[in-house]
Amino acid sequence: MFNNRIKVKALLAGEPAGQQATVMGWVRTFRNNQFVALNDGSTNNNLQVVLELGKFDDTLLKRITTSAALKVTGTVVASQGKGQKLELKADTIEILGDSDAEKYPLQPKKHSLEFLREKAHLRFRTNTFGSVFRIRHSLAFAIHKFFNEKGFVYLHTPIITASDAEGAGEMFRVSTLPFDNPPRREDGTIDFSEDFFGRATNLTVSGQLEGELGATAFGEIYTFGPTFRAENSNTARHLAEFWMIEPEMAFCDLEDNANLAEEFIQYIIRYAMEHNADDLEFLRQRLLEEEKAKPQTERSELDLIQKLEFVVNNQFERITYTEAIDILLQSNHYKKKKFQYDVSWGIDMQSEHERYLVEKHFKKPVIVTNYPKDIKAFYMRQNEDGKTVAAMDILAPGIGEIVGGSQREERLERLEQRMTEMNIPHEELWWYLDTRRFGTVPHAGFGLGFERIVQFVTGMSNIRDVIAFPRTPKSAEF
Amino acid sequence: MFNNRIKVKALLAGEPAGQQATVMGWVRTFRNNQFVALNDGSTNNNLQVVLELGKFDDTLLKRITTSAALKVTGTVVASQGKGQKLELKADTIEILGDSDAEKYPLQPKKHSLEFLREKAHLRFRTNTFGSVFRIRHSLAFAIHKFFNEKGFVYLHTPIITASDAEGAGEMFRVSTLPFDNPPRREDGTIDFSEDFFGRATNLTVSGQLEGELGATAFGEIYTFGPTFRAENSNTARHLAEFWMIEPEMAFCDLEDNANLAEEFIQYIIRYAMEHNADDLEFLRQRLLEEEKAKPQTERSELDLIQKLEFVVNNQFERITYTEAIDILLQSNHYKKKKFQYDVSWGIDMQSEHERYLVEKHFKKPVIVTNYPKDIKAFYMRQNEDGKTVAAMDILAPGIGEIVGGSQREERLERLEQRMTEMNIPHEELWWYLDTRRFGTVPHAGFGLGFERIVQFVTGMSNIRDVIAFPRTPKSAEF
Repeated sequence: MFNNRIKVKALLAGEPAGQQATVMGWVRTFRNNQFVALNDGSTNNNLQVVLELGKFDDTLLKRITTSAALKVTGTVVASQGKGQKLELKADTIEILGDSDAEKYPLQPKKHSLEFLREKAHLRFRTNTFGSVFRIRHSLAFAIHKFFNEKGFVYLHTPIITASDAEGAGEMFRVSTLPFDNPPRREDGTIDFSEDFFGRATNLTVSGQLEGELGATAFGEIYTFGPTFRAENSNTARHLAEFWMIEPEMAFCDLEDNANLAEEFIQYIIRYAMEHNADDLEFLRQRLLEEEKAKPQTERSELDLIQKLEFVVNNQFERITYTEAIDILLQSNHYKKKKFQYDVSWGIDMQSEHERYLVEKHFKKPVIVTNYPKDIKAFYMRQNEDGKTVAAMDILAPGIGEIVGGSQREERLERLEQRMTEMNIPHEELWWYLDTRRFGTVPHAGFGLGFERIVQFVTGMSNIRDVIAFPRTPKSAEF
Repeated sequence: MFNNRIKVKALLAGEPAGQQATVMGWVRTFRNNQFVALNDGSTNNNLQVVLELGKFDDTLLKRITTSAALKVTGTVVASQGKGQKLELKADTIEILGDSDAEKYPLQPKKHSLEFLREKAHLRFRTNTFGSVFRIRHSLAFAIHKFFNEKGFVYLHTPIITASDAEGAGEMFRVSTLPFDNPPRREDGTIDFSEDFFGRATNLTVSGQLEGELGATAFGEIYTFGPTFRAENSNTARHLAEFWMIEPEMAFCDLEDNANLAEEFIQYIIRYAMEHNADDLEFLRQRLLEEEKAKPQTERSELDLIQKLEFVVNNQFERITYTEAIDILLQSNHYKKKKFQYDVSWGIDMQSEHERYLVEKHFKKPVIVTNYPKDIKAFYMRQNEDGKTVAAMDILAPGIGEIVGGSQREERLERLEQRMTEMNIPHEELWWYLDTRRFGTVPHAGFGLGFERIVQFVTGMSNIRDVIAFPRTPKSAEF
């Protein structure tokens, strides 16, 4: 047995009572041949390890370099230094792994986020990414906890799918056919019946349709898994591979859906605030520092933690799409022609419009409902006005859309009619239509982009900095 | 707001005090125009809804068919019937969705598992699959809870990967290139630099290598995500797409690793036993029923719940690979030539050998350690005997291998030498080798096949019956 250590976070939470302790971690800094700041990833707060002068060999001291791995046994005593309650007075030090300080890619200085993206295999060892990924963990756990407490069943919907009916975007082909010389039919087309699954398959863009199968049996289910878009969008907001949470609820209408989404978002943010106070404080400071580079007028009115407090303590604004368009049309922004894209009823709102609504007009998350049917998917419930569907998007300051959802069209005839209008092949979705044939019920659901909410909570402006190893056009490193 | 219902599980857990309640669910059976067994997926236990004779229209009564969806408001009263504490005396009944009893694919009779696999979109509505997927949910939640309590960070390792170095099996190609006419280089080979990621990419077979990057920063991480094998194995034990849990721990040796795996498996089984007692009891009965078709000698000595109790209350057996081979060689089974495959030191044990060890010899889960290096992966830590590596497999009765893990080779030179021997390109894994260059530490981890543990806990013999929509050769329906 090797692992007899106490984690730094647990040690720092205790009292300095002269007890013995063994810690293991990586050197962040080593000052005056005396003070090691040791980090083991459990917290950004380093443990100060104090080396009595003369007690350790010079050869050992020379090996205490940035990122070297140490095992230290010593006595936990009250700290003389400021900023820390306790420190570890070292009795024995073992170098577990050396680190050539000159070759180590992360020097003890500030690196740009762009640089760290190229060192994604090591960036977890920085305070920024330590905080981001511990918060990401907490949010993921809070998501499971929230749904588990409500009795939702966690459903793993398929990643590889033969269905491309949702039409949410371009898809990645999954295949074992050889590109070099794929089997062909007599007419020269590719013979996918020879492929692994006996047909053409893709990576899923959403688990919703399968999620509805679960909801109409278990009542309430959620998914939490990877989804994919083969869109050539090289922006700070897009990933080709990202994680999505998709709850789906039977016996649920659009209002229930919006209520759940709001409660859910507030719950998981509150959870992170309670469990990651240190990490959020670090990121708050980081963001303030970053904002210093901006002109006063572009800085946020609220700091990171104030922003989160505001979101958990205030109801989200709820407006219809029609009201949203009216607000835009009546804005000075519009009248002064400051929008790049025109505004009229029926448009698919652009990012600039959404940002105006949440950042300038309401200054809080907004739930927009009842969009024109022509800009929304076939499965959304048709409203009685003949023009709109029971859709909802949740827009958040600084991020834009974090949730997209709807009440689903549970009426077989209406659904089939809409599928015909939108050229969705009925036979491919026979199983989906069966739920409307046998005990159909009002039901609804939504999708939350996990990286978007991690961005919102951590204040990171590039989505590539909130997922471990981002997948983007021309980049699949690590 | 539509959703003012109480879930059946919650209602059944309360007392019949004459309170008003609204429930929504699907009809399982309707007897004597009086008794509806209503199920809403929260539990297999149906709510008995009692219709006073003459109170409801005949046209309504005719629409109360198997799988029709109802909204019922009524009074909760003590039940006269046996087997249930309370029932709902209906005041109003609303048909939310009809179900044509003659067309509904699941008739109120016993269907074979094979038949239900073809109706995977509806099989959640049966007691068997209701239980299986609620237990699957509980196990998934318990996994997150276990690691969260221990301070592990949940890491989402990439699904699309350019690395195929692990060599754990055949991989699926992921691409946006057109099969019809892919771009080619001058020498005629496919030009993957034109592909979405600028290189050839595949679906991951394991998140372990990336997991090690997380562990050597956060100390302890785990993954829980889909993994893929493009193997043409059409068996009851294999899926092309399955979910895997891969914890990875810094400062950890093989013994720590085995300890954690054992504690982990016992924890999640115990959690399911505490939270899914009804579902397990149903599956226990189901399995007893199934076993009646077998000859006495082939029936299990323990029933499902006794088996789980045995596993959570007894230590797993721990033996080395060398000891395992000795046991096999000295067995009567071997001496009577009952093994199909020969036994000698160095073999990759076949399923029949593993089953002999766990089912005949030890009759409990067995952790086998220190396998010959030639049958194991490059990253496993080399033992001092020069012949074996610090690997461990956990074998479970009835399932076979549920966990595969190892202490990792943390010594750069040894690792590089082994990679060279096994023709693993160093340059492709530069990032992996960096962890050994900069503060390397003893570390270890394992992978648990999620569907295998769901099978073990639910007693389902075919792996296709424990994942919602199985992906297997020539099959990607739904």
